Amino acid sequence: MADGYKMVIAVRADLRMSIGKTAAQVAHAAVNCSLASKKKDPDSFERWMSGGCPKIVLKVNSEAELFEVKMTADALGIVNSVVTDAGRTEIAPGSVTCVAVGPDTETKVDKVTGHLSML
Amino acid sequence: MADGYKMVIAVRADLRMSIGKTAAQVAHAAVNCSLASKKKDPDSFERWMSGGCPKIVLKVNSEAELFEVKMTADALGIVNSVVTDAGRTEIAPGSVTCVAVGPDTETKVDKVTGHLSML
Repeated sequence: MADGYKMVIAVRADLRMSIGKTAAQVAHAAVNCSLASKKKDPDSFERWMSGGCPKIVLKVNSEAELFEVKMTADALGIVNSVVTDAGRTEIAPGSVTCVAVGPDTETKVDKVTGHLSML
Repeated sequence: MADGYKMVIAVRADLRMSIGKTAAQVAHAAVNCSLASKKKDPDSFERWMSGGCPKIVLKVNSEAELFEVKMTADALGIVNSVVTDAGRTEIAPGSVTCVAVGPDTETKVDKVTGHLSML
């Protein structure tokens, strides 16, 4: 069976950000990770683009859980990008808000984020 | 006074999408518009990147209002990107969910979205 390419963005639910703030943080992560992927892993990037750039938003419940996701992605060699907010609104300056993982194959990304729930 | 560069993403509040769905749609728009900007308006793109890629999420209340935003951006020559959802979850297939405008100068983007409220 064909293995599609996807990006997952995991957001910290414990920060209780508003919907607009959450969307902006997820967009930061997705843009940063897309540009990093285009440079570092252009083959995955192109396959993801041609498949309609699927993005899935999931949740983590702490900064520690977010960094576990990042470390697993690093260990598997999957491009990823952590967002630290300037904290001008809603949350404390320097708060780590989300991490984007991929694009990579669904199988590989699921090894990193398959245990997480929908936001 | 220096005029910074920003991107605004306007989301349809009338669709009442969940927070995860909203974030994914905003991420689609932001990624598409960033890549379009990098290609079509690299000067604005680089200035926006060096300023930390500010993104602001605002709301529109109908598809008609969303397309007004797009048409104003087109008329001013500002890069923009409309997202149409495949509609596999939550909303009807082919629903237009959001539009990203910019990056461009705050002054120019405000001419398009300055009248909109926070999501």
